[in-house]
Amino acid sequence: MFNFNPLFETLPQSVPFVGPEALERKRHRAFAARIGANENVFGPSPKAIEAMQNSVSGSWQYGDPENYELREVLAESLDVPAAHIAIGEGIDGLLGYLVRMIVKQGDKVVTSHGAYPTFNYHVIGYGGNLITVPYVDDHENLELLLEKTIETKPALVYLANPDNPMGTWNLGKSIENFVKQLPIETLLVLDEAYIEFAPTDAITKVDVNDPRVIRFRTFSKAHGMAGMRIGYAIGCEELIRGFNRVRNHFGMCRISQIGAIASLLDTDNIADVIRKADESKGRIYRLAESNNLKAIPSAANFVAVDGGYDGQFARMLLEELIQRDIFVRMPFVAPQDRCVRISVGTQQDHVLLEEVFPEALSVATQKYLDATT
Amino acid sequence: MFNFNPLFETLPQSVPFVGPEALERKRHRAFAARIGANENVFGPSPKAIEAMQNSVSGSWQYGDPENYELREVLAESLDVPAAHIAIGEGIDGLLGYLVRMIVKQGDKVVTSHGAYPTFNYHVIGYGGNLITVPYVDDHENLELLLEKTIETKPALVYLANPDNPMGTWNLGKSIENFVKQLPIETLLVLDEAYIEFAPTDAITKVDVNDPRVIRFRTFSKAHGMAGMRIGYAIGCEELIRGFNRVRNHFGMCRISQIGAIASLLDTDNIADVIRKADESKGRIYRLAESNNLKAIPSAANFVAVDGGYDGQFARMLLEELIQRDIFVRMPFVAPQDRCVRISVGTQQDHVLLEEVFPEALSVATQKYLDATT
Repeated sequence: MFNFNPLFETLPQSVPFVGPEALERKRHRAFAARIGANENVFGPSPKAIEAMQNSVSGSWQYGDPENYELREVLAESLDVPAAHIAIGEGIDGLLGYLVRMIVKQGDKVVTSHGAYPTFNYHVIGYGGNLITVPYVDDHENLELLLEKTIETKPALVYLANPDNPMGTWNLGKSIENFVKQLPIETLLVLDEAYIEFAPTDAITKVDVNDPRVIRFRTFSKAHGMAGMRIGYAIGCEELIRGFNRVRNHFGMCRISQIGAIASLLDTDNIADVIRKADESKGRIYRLAESNNLKAIPSAANFVAVDGGYDGQFARMLLEELIQRDIFVRMPFVAPQDRCVRISVGTQQDHVLLEEVFPEALSVATQKYLDATT
Repeated sequence: MFNFNPLFETLPQSVPFVGPEALERKRHRAFAARIGANENVFGPSPKAIEAMQNSVSGSWQYGDPENYELREVLAESLDVPAAHIAIGEGIDGLLGYLVRMIVKQGDKVVTSHGAYPTFNYHVIGYGGNLITVPYVDDHENLELLLEKTIETKPALVYLANPDNPMGTWNLGKSIENFVKQLPIETLLVLDEAYIEFAPTDAITKVDVNDPRVIRFRTFSKAHGMAGMRIGYAIGCEELIRGFNRVRNHFGMCRISQIGAIASLLDTDNIADVIRKADESKGRIYRLAESNNLKAIPSAANFVAVDGGYDGQFARMLLEELIQRDIFVRMPFVAPQDRCVRISVGTQQDHVLLEEVFPEALSVATQKYLDATT
């Protein structure tokens, strides 16, 4: 009936992720542990909470469309000039803007099969042609990515470090070496959403004037502010300035801007979050071990636990956990989808998870064996 | 240096609006009265403030990507099924999605010369071809819009009712009649950002199944939550569903969702805001009159005050007001730019404005006469 744009007509109705709220509505019951969306259950910095609460009554004012103060504080914190930083409505929003800036219909984009679906959503949304290489040993593989990139000369190549959904990582030095070999046509989209949780040698040193790399970071993970929608991009000035031609200039919440600044200044809190996340990951590793499963060592705030069989089994295990009020997720594609992905949790989340996990595993195993033998 | 999308390369660096914060940075001084961005200086509902403050500590969770509860409460409040409502990051965000859904490069779009620049930003951003008709007597003119629409058969025709920046309005009945005559190729984008402030006969009755109209409303104006970025679109199901193929599914702040629901349920507060806005508009009318200027009757939360000369004079008057710490704006194009646009203010804003206005007017008049005679 509508004269939709022909490209739009080709787009799928599908949604990258179903929210836990939608599952709760379907189940007619709330989850007892929300450890599926890689949120930071330890919450925002108390100082950020206070700053946000104090700013709520002023939310009749639009936020500063230039995000000036937040960019200045980020610049100080990152030791990068503010002109190299763009702010947006989460990394998701910024990835959409970047793809729009660069990708025209039919342009090639290289990523790993099973990497971040929302990036793919944007690429497809602007008519890009996704080319994937497999994960190797649950890692995004730099050799395969580079080979495919040199072969196809894509507009963009995507790499998350640490990776989501597997939690694995590449060494910063290896990525620096990867960048050196990129063809002139290709920009590296380096998604560092989880970088604060990673070991130091996972950090990629990038000259902010280097036009071959744009990095993305977020307040949704280590800063515990997923619900406030604040992401940022770091790159060379020309590219960063480009966001101003396509972005929703008044798209940022004023309270988010204020909360992000307070959170950045509270460096003790970030250290505390990382310590708690490490403890929680240790507890997930031990849970896996005590259930005779293998946990994949993670540099992020979640752990992929290998179910030991295949995607069908992992989906059954996931279902049993969800039925027992534990919200978790799992990778979308094989062979990574043999895992269930568990985000870091509170003490209470762990108590609940440890209580129900053995039974969920046992029921899923029985169902799986019934279905497959 | 970059392989930007060719369309992107053509886009201007310009920004639809400069924020008051940028002016404050330039002036090295804060404004004493912030009555330039058509914000709602009376603030959010006390119940919305409380709900938002209570939800801040839970902002580690992403908002519901389906905006389910907010859409249900809106559906109830509007007496429209939820499937006919889409939520986005302000009307600005939703307009961007709509243009992306519909407009392909070279498509025609009709609007009034001097109407909402952010809509134009999106149209140009997706390669659309803007065609404008003039305002007539400071009103968006339905006859000219219809004539041009029938002549050019655009993909979209834009109409704000009430209008921004002039505050004038068309009768709902006239718009209903306009819709009946639209060519089959054309969708009416009916921007009702200020509709809560308008007289009853300004409301356009639209069958929500009518594929010829999509309406946009917001929590930024009557609800006093501009800084929370919540807009919504009302239209036929097929069109509303379309947003799911392009929108940033996790783009909405969780606190914004919660605050919007609380604000919708506090209907007394909206009535109070409208009463206060009417009082404030009356005071702006009287200010104009006592300074021998003409105020244009407004159905919105701001008043365009005719400076009596031209754009050059209005810019001088604006500058004098800004120098006296009063943030106001003005229309961008002639002949509407002979006006200064003053948003409704608090008692204190009015006291300040009334104190400095005569001098600002007198200095501007002297400068103008010096420059032009």
